[in-house]
Amino acid sequence: MATVKLIEYEEASPEVKAVYDDIMTTRGIDWINNFWKAIAVQPDMLRRTWEGVKAVTAPGALDPLVKEMIYVAVSVTNGCEYCINSHTASARKKGMTDEMLGELMAVVGMANQTNALVTGFQVELDKVFQNGGRKP
Amino acid sequence: MATVKLIEYEEASPEVKAVYDDIMTTRGIDWINNFWKAIAVQPDMLRRTWEGVKAVTAPGALDPLVKEMIYVAVSVTNGCEYCINSHTASARKKGMTDEMLGELMAVVGMANQTNALVTGFQVELDKVFQNGGRKP
Amino acid sequence: MATVKLIEYEEASPEVKAVYDDIMTTRGIDWINNFWKAIAVQPDMLRRTWEGVKAVTAPGALDPLVKEMIYVAVSVTNGCEYCINSHTASARKKGMTDEMLGELMAVVGMANQTNALVTGFQVELDKVFQNGGRKP
Amino acid sequence: MATVKLIEYEEASPEVKAVYDDIMTTRGIDWINNFWKAIAVQPDMLRRTWEGVKAVTAPGALDPLVKEMIYVAVSVTNGCEYCINSHTASARKKGMTDEMLGELMAVVGMANQTNALVTGFQVELDKVFQNGGRKP
Amino acid sequence: MATVKLIEYEEASPEVKAVYDDIMTTRGIDWINNFWKAIAVQPDMLRRTWEGVKAVTAPGALDPLVKEMIYVAVSVTNGCEYCINSHTASARKKGMTDEMLGELMAVVGMANQTNALVTGFQVELDKVFQNGGRKP
Amino acid sequence: MATVKLIEYEEASPEVKAVYDDIMTTRGIDWINNFWKAIAVQPDMLRRTWEGVKAVTAPGALDPLVKEMIYVAVSVTNGCEYCINSHTASARKKGMTDEMLGELMAVVGMANQTNALVTGFQVELDKVFQNGGRKP
Repeated sequence: MATVKLIEYEEASPEVKAVYDDIMTTRGIDWINNFWKAIAVQPDMLRRTWEGVKAVTAPGALDPLVKEMIYVAVSVTNGCEYCINSHTASARKKGMTDEMLGELMAVVGMANQTNALVTGFQVELDKVFQNGGRKP
Repeated sequence: MATVKLIEYEEASPEVKAVYDDIMTTRGIDWINNFWKAIAVQPDMLRRTWEGVKAVTAPGALDPLVKEMIYVAVSVTNGCEYCINSHTASARKKGMTDEMLGELMAVVGMANQTNALVTGFQVELDKVFQNGGRKP
Repeated sequence: MATVKLIEYEEASPEVKAVYDDIMTTRGIDWINNFWKAIAVQPDMLRRTWEGVKAVTAPGALDPLVKEMIYVAVSVTNGCEYCINSHTASARKKGMTDEMLGELMAVVGMANQTNALVTGFQVELDKVFQNGGRKP
Repeated sequence: MATVKLIEYEEASPEVKAVYDDIMTTRGIDWINNFWKAIAVQPDMLRRTWEGVKAVTAPGALDPLVKEMIYVAVSVTNGCEYCINSHTASARKKGMTDEMLGELMAVVGMANQTNALVTGFQVELDKVFQNGGRKP
Repeated sequence: MATVKLIEYEEASPEVKAVYDDIMTTRGIDWINNFWKAIAVQPDMLRRTWEGVKAVTAPGALDPLVKEMIYVAVSVTNGCEYCINSHTASARKKGMTDEMLGELMAVVGMANQTNALVTGFQVELDKVFQNGGRKP
Repeated sequence: MATVKLIEYEEASPEVKAVYDDIMTTRGIDWINNFWKAIAVQPDMLRRTWEGVKAVTAPGALDPLVKEMIYVAVSVTNGCEYCINSHTASARKKGMTDEMLGELMAVVGMANQTNALVTGFQVELDKVFQNGGRKP
């Protein structure tokens, strides 16, 4: 269920069907997960979102598995249950082991802790870290 | 500045000095950044936090640069300015290029968008993603 | 269920009953939703919260439906399931169509993405935007 | 400043220049704000993000000013300083008065409060609100 | 500065002046901090917010210093710089020592870490903790 | 369930068993809650996290019940369902009454509201609050 009606392939408009087809082809699967069926309520949002997801998860300077783990890290910090489960599943399919998941969570946990401490004490940024260490 | 007095090396207790020494040795540097000087207000917190950070950033199943980028992803999602700048600087020192930073942010941006969409429509988790795709 | 006992109308104190009555009269309904029954654990909090909600959702410079959609946007960003569902329901009752909900979510999604990108790159505020564009 | 070098119009690649031109034409202005100059580090991200922002802020079922205020509501909840200032400025340009800004913030404030109360007491969703009040 | 004009005492309407007077009397001070001067843009919001803050910080089942520290904990988790600084200052005035602040932050830090771990692994709630341990 | 297999006492390694034993001894209970069984996927994370939780919840300058309520306040603000329920249950065991829980939530609610208002109007910090009121 969802706050909008999920749009199944059979009832989809040609514009929506084209996106569904591209999702299945790109991923080599024969089904569409609920996320896409929900945002299909606005075909333009569906198309743009899929283009974005497709672009950022494609191989590039970063490894696809690394990208998937970054996706999990953000989803955990936002507390998005659907996203944590779906991207953890995707990461496992791309080779993430229990050990890697354990390390990923250890980093995410420490990052959330030290983020809170820095913020809580209102620590001033060291000069050397300004602009993320970039030489102006 | 900060909401507590930063504790400089010279005035630190032996317990705090020992942690400062280990930080500098482990990182091959000769200075301590403000974060540690702030949390030194509670020496036990300083020691435990350093042990945690040291453990999760050490090489393991995940590459140290990957861990640093995961740290950045969490810090961005939490909006922690100090953390974003300091970990971006660390990632650059470990080899992150502008291209990699660009891809990292592209993933973080899309993840924050799709997290919001999934949550906004209250999309139900597909069965296949339950338990992060783990076979029970 | 909840972490406190929900207080039903029949067992409520006169102070709580008076708030329940005002909620039902103001909204033209004959039941009280769980939120109010939970915060009734502290009658003063119940009264103040209801006064606040009543005040901010009344017609004013902004349209009641617009206010309801703003409520949804905040609830999505906070990931509050109860709030998303209840305010989406209220917005529908006030005339929100699927198309409007789609556009609302499209904005919420893009805002969460660009918020993350601005923060991730630590972009400095352009002069012209200072003080929200207000002339000092 | 930012954690990446801002790309000015003069030094931009044709692909980036094309997006900059479209931003200026669409908005009827002759300058580019820092946000776009930062994400231009990855031209594809620049193009997709601009397409998204352009699409969601165009007139549709919702009024452009309403969309701008929704953008502000999300940015406040995320604590994004750049975003709050820039979108408040945009909303003012589209006609938002001090009174409207006051009401917007009153709703955002109450929403953040009641979100916390619902979550804090773990209030169970009333049946009538399930699926955002949508009839299945 | 702020995105609205701060309203000084001299130029305030009688309704706003009355709230300012009550703030100064209640707190035994002779000045108004910027927060109130900003939300005075909407006198009704000023009045309601002050009533709420006055009510929740008054002595009750919880000690005023404890309440102030809870305020700090929430502000840290939300990353609100103004709020962290002002409530840390208030807590210090009410007797919070560096040692207490250190312990407060140690708890806030661990809570943010374990929150992330629980969420990251999607841990199912133990039966005994349901409804916050309340017997139904 | 969880995204990793929960490790029961019987099947745990000696390192994990030692932590489980210390948890049960410290708390005077004969069972382990799901959180620890999940993070046991990485024994080092289990050990460090338990040491941290044990340290911050021990009596100190702050009362154990106060610490538990601070834990609840952070968990509410993060929206962590498991954490809210488990720490509310712990706080009740340590003496938190319904009245205290009501006051705790009233503070958490107001803090989330005023945090949003301060941020929404981008209120500048008063000089007297700088560094949390600490004299430099």
